[in-house]
Amino acid sequence: MAPLPVVRIKPDSDIEGALVVSCFPTVGYVSSIVAHYLVERLELNFVCGIRHADLPPVSLVQDGSPMPPIRFYTGEPLCNVGKCDKIVLIASEIKVPSKLVLPIAEALLEWSKENNLGGGLIIDAFTKSGDQPHQILEGDDDVKTDTLLGIGATEEMRKQLKEMDVPLLKHGIISGMTGVLMGECRRRGLDAMAILAEANGPAASGFPDARAAARLIEKLDILLPAVHLETEPLITEAERIEDQIREMMSANIQGGDESESGTDSSMLYG
Amino acid sequence: MAPLPVVRIKPDSDIEGALVVSCFPTVGYVSSIVAHYLVERLELNFVCGIRHADLPPVSLVQDGSPMPPIRFYTGEPLCNVGKCDKIVLIASEIKVPSKLVLPIAEALLEWSKENNLGGGLIIDAFTKSGDQPHQILEGDDDVKTDTLLGIGATEEMRKQLKEMDVPLLKHGIISGMTGVLMGECRRRGLDAMAILAEANGPAASGFPDARAAARLIEKLDILLPAVHLETEPLITEAERIEDQIREMMSANIQGGDESESGTDSSMLYG
Amino acid sequence: MAPLPVVRIKPDSDIEGALVVSCFPTVGYVSSIVAHYLVERLELNFVCGIRHADLPPVSLVQDGSPMPPIRFYTGEPLCNVGKCDKIVLIASEIKVPSKLVLPIAEALLEWSKENNLGGGLIIDAFTKSGDQPHQILEGDDDVKTDTLLGIGATEEMRKQLKEMDVPLLKHGIISGMTGVLMGECRRRGLDAMAILAEANGPAASGFPDARAAARLIEKLDILLPAVHLETEPLITEAERIEDQIREMMSANIQGGDESESGTDSSMLYG
Amino acid sequence: MAPLPVVRIKPDSDIEGALVVSCFPTVGYVSSIVAHYLVERLELNFVCGIRHADLPPVSLVQDGSPMPPIRFYTGEPLCNVGKCDKIVLIASEIKVPSKLVLPIAEALLEWSKENNLGGGLIIDAFTKSGDQPHQILEGDDDVKTDTLLGIGATEEMRKQLKEMDVPLLKHGIISGMTGVLMGECRRRGLDAMAILAEANGPAASGFPDARAAARLIEKLDILLPAVHLETEPLITEAERIEDQIREMMSANIQGGDESESGTDSSMLYG
Amino acid sequence: MAPLPVVRIKPDSDIEGALVVSCFPTVGYVSSIVAHYLVERLELNFVCGIRHADLPPVSLVQDGSPMPPIRFYTGEPLCNVGKCDKIVLIASEIKVPSKLVLPIAEALLEWSKENNLGGGLIIDAFTKSGDQPHQILEGDDDVKTDTLLGIGATEEMRKQLKEMDVPLLKHGIISGMTGVLMGECRRRGLDAMAILAEANGPAASGFPDARAAARLIEKLDILLPAVHLETEPLITEAERIEDQIREMMSANIQGGDESESGTDSSMLYG
Repeated sequence: MAPLPVVRIKPDSDIEGALVVSCFPTVGYVSSIVAHYLVERLELNFVCGIRHADLPPVSLVQDGSPMPPIRFYTGEPLCNVGKCDKIVLIASEIKVPSKLVLPIAEALLEWSKENNLGGGLIIDAFTKSGDQPHQILEGDDDVKTDTLLGIGATEEMRKQLKEMDVPLLKHGIISGMTGVLMGECRRRGLDAMAILAEANGPAASGFPDARAAARLIEKLDILLPAVHLETEPLITEAERIEDQIREMMSANIQGGDESESGTDSSMLYG
Repeated sequence: MAPLPVVRIKPDSDIEGALVVSCFPTVGYVSSIVAHYLVERLELNFVCGIRHADLPPVSLVQDGSPMPPIRFYTGEPLCNVGKCDKIVLIASEIKVPSKLVLPIAEALLEWSKENNLGGGLIIDAFTKSGDQPHQILEGDDDVKTDTLLGIGATEEMRKQLKEMDVPLLKHGIISGMTGVLMGECRRRGLDAMAILAEANGPAASGFPDARAAARLIEKLDILLPAVHLETEPLITEAERIEDQIREMMSANIQGGDESESGTDSSMLYG
Repeated sequence: MAPLPVVRIKPDSDIEGALVVSCFPTVGYVSSIVAHYLVERLELNFVCGIRHADLPPVSLVQDGSPMPPIRFYTGEPLCNVGKCDKIVLIASEIKVPSKLVLPIAEALLEWSKENNLGGGLIIDAFTKSGDQPHQILEGDDDVKTDTLLGIGATEEMRKQLKEMDVPLLKHGIISGMTGVLMGECRRRGLDAMAILAEANGPAASGFPDARAAARLIEKLDILLPAVHLETEPLITEAERIEDQIREMMSANIQGGDESESGTDSSMLYG
Repeated sequence: MAPLPVVRIKPDSDIEGALVVSCFPTVGYVSSIVAHYLVERLELNFVCGIRHADLPPVSLVQDGSPMPPIRFYTGEPLCNVGKCDKIVLIASEIKVPSKLVLPIAEALLEWSKENNLGGGLIIDAFTKSGDQPHQILEGDDDVKTDTLLGIGATEEMRKQLKEMDVPLLKHGIISGMTGVLMGECRRRGLDAMAILAEANGPAASGFPDARAAARLIEKLDILLPAVHLETEPLITEAERIEDQIREMMSANIQGGDESESGTDSSMLYG
Repeated sequence: MAPLPVVRIKPDSDIEGALVVSCFPTVGYVSSIVAHYLVERLELNFVCGIRHADLPPVSLVQDGSPMPPIRFYTGEPLCNVGKCDKIVLIASEIKVPSKLVLPIAEALLEWSKENNLGGGLIIDAFTKSGDQPHQILEGDDDVKTDTLLGIGATEEMRKQLKEMDVPLLKHGIISGMTGVLMGECRRRGLDAMAILAEANGPAASGFPDARAAARLIEKLDILLPAVHLETEPLITEAERIEDQIREMMSANIQGGDESESGTDSSMLYG
């Protein structure tokens, strides 16, 4: 097992009782669009990142400034999840390697506990298998929209998801940070929910899906009423961020070796 | 070697003398269908799961609630395997990685010993090689049905399998949790048996096989007479669970990186 | 390096001075056929196995009883290799992974030394490269049969091989347990020989070769005169065991994940 | 995690306050051409290298003399980055394996701190995705040349890049040594900048790009005014070095095994 | 990092001041042919080998006797490299895995130092990239023969190579044992040279190249005048050894698993 990751945050950050919003990327860049939107709209401040030798060795560059790929932001919008009146946003441009998922999830939850954080909200996306479209919700008569799905670590959270008109995922396998974080929150009895938007494009296409992100942000507005996320220019905003992410992806600026398992010669130069 | 997995269970669980039924998945989702059937029919309660950083990082979601992929359930049906009058069900939605098979098998058996459990029943499935159908039982004149096969860790168990009209596997290689658990039980002299149903579809097809599961459940009825597993609606029930599992599989909700050994760029976003 | 494997045997086993016959599988199932033949013919008893988390997680099932994939058998036929008048047979249904070959070879030899065993005989097989048939023995004018080859760890053993009309391998690379065991025996000055039979079929075909096994067993008769291995029904016997092994192979009963390096989703169910 | 790499340098080297110029190779051999150019033009002296068992096992040979693949050179040209009046050049012919990127970056920065070095300049290159050419700078109206991009670890560095007419990278993911070194410098508040030249050829072609290197060297002239890098014969010089690198690549002199994960037989001879 | 390899030699071996000749195999079996030639011609005696669990698990068999794949031989021909009047030959039939190259190189040099050995000579081969033949030596006007290349760890060694009419490699990347051993000798200031012969056939063909070996042996005659390597029957001798190596390769005698990363089932039998 890799050495345990450690989360440190600037000691003067006032995050007690804050809602932790996690945005680890999966399909359609949906959680990334949401993360970038929240950082801008809520004027969140970068406070720290996670470093680990087994994470992909990359930096996110914004306006010429290098940032760690998994980043923590804080700010103080009011929200109505439990007692929280602040927000801690976890944004990531990398997928966490499988072997680090459980250690990082545990480090995050230990850190949340030490800092007395308030609750957890995980932003994610999903696609349906190509050959069996929409079968996932077959039989869900009470579903108003089939493009969002919720998971609640506690009964309280599942109740709140229903009140927000987010249908619960009936049967499914969730992998990665979302799956493991939710499982750990259930085990520890922590109030956390995950909301997953269906990304329109196929999983493999890799295109950012601003509309899926916009549907998620609309739901966040219920949880963060004090900040009045304006729904009017939402699509426009999301599409602007989508463009930024496309831009980010278009720069093939890689110093790492393309194929770790390659031959010796492939490690030389080209 | 990975750190040893530890099995913990809620201290107030009354499981002394219980029959342990293990359902690790192989072909045709057979053991999963049986596990879901038993949980529902015997009204078993989830008590704990196995966590390990080297297990696939996933959660099983049911009705919006996240569960660990390897789960323990308990309940108190009467059964007639040795002195047991309770049941501990181990259900899994993941295959255990090869390097963890022996450590997890040993942890399970240590835990069984500490809790003074009564006996073991392993549910599994098999397929025959395409080019040599049915050759496996050639020469078994006393076989009534060739769609079930039994393995007994002790002479007593092999005798009981025969009494249940489950033919013994004459020659075969069994891999994974079933192979290693049975081998360890033999070494330790523990009363454990494995019953494997032939899954009709080819191994690679990956389709759930409710009928193979139903044949297994009929045999379980012999071992668990106190609970009266009704054979009448069995196929219907099994098919309903089969549908649930198809549903589960149809949701492509993956936050983990698709290819661990991929290039750096494949870890970014899509 | 993986943790060292440990060999333990029932303390009441009388194996001092015994001949150790090792049958690790390579091409044509030859060593497996020989091992099964010796177990049956010499009425050997299973005494222990090797367990290691890095070995493939499998059991061999025979008549419904699960056995470890690397097994030790003992018995007391007379033989004329040095002072031995007993036999320890090592049978295996798995190939030892490369990284475990040296540790297991060393554990076996340490164990042989502690138990004061008498000598070693390694049974193996080989094939010739398709494009250069028989070139391996070019120039060996004194060779009567070109279908067996011998290696001797000591001068004494090489002399005995010649007396048995087993030609020595002139130039060759031997990999796996046979190569490393023989090298270690030479280094330690232990009396050990390897006899390799040419398997008729190509290496990749994977078909059992009973005739190659029979040729080996004929030579063993010289080493084990007290047991009178009857050469008459030898081919018939070997072919019967060949059939059992085919049977064993035809059962696709695998609970382990097919591709360790696969994606996360491939670890779910099918 | 691999053991930490250690950087040692000859104790009499006077490098206090020196500018560290890092040239780890990515696309188009650009940083290698720059490194070779600076070594020759500034008459830098080889002082030490990095050794680690997990680095590719290679030597760079120049004029019959073997050198480590990651090399440090020193010299004393005047420059105007902060208080530096000396230079330490890090040249590399190998890409650092992903798992070593963070440990080596940290070792370099620790070493820089202990030796009281002055500032950092990272030379790198980039290409644009084939299907979306030039989209990376869309909207950058104030960009004079789109073939260079800058990243600054501090506000001061970003300001200096602008003064040098090097446009900042607006949005991008930077991997490898450049990404991680810049991220660590930001975290530690160290004055470091990266300048990346667009390599004309496609990333996969692997051809050295002397013109991209020449554009970089022109910018270095601003930072190193005391040495008067003559721009006149620059292209000619860069092309000469490009030829040397082609020469270097044309020698297939490999003693290492071509495919680490190959079969046993592939490790024998050929 | 793997555990450090240890080199031990029989304590009564008189090797102080000996020339160490290393013959690790690369292209065309050239170094193997040279090693076998020297062992026979100089009547060298096998003294020890290197054992490590991460080396390929193989033995070299000669005349029925198993030998370790990396072997040390000693003898006492006179030579004129420094003060040496003895020889230690390192012969290998395997390529050293990348991760072991640095540890083994360091173990060899530590051992050389402890035994006060005299100097090092590394025998190797190279091929040129198919598409740019001979470009490697472009501009070397003073080259008499372009089929040998030299590398010298010290200025003294480079001078001696020139006196022997072996042109220095101007620019190149050398990987494997030769690259790392030469780099370490330079770092430690040890007198070592490498002579590489161009193997005529393509690298991938894998055919032994006796003529390339003969060119190398001619140069060795300069270094080992006391032994009078007869150049007359050299090609004939080299070709005879080439035949032995072909013979060695033609025996497909492998007990190791063909594909370490294969599926579980591939580890069973065939």
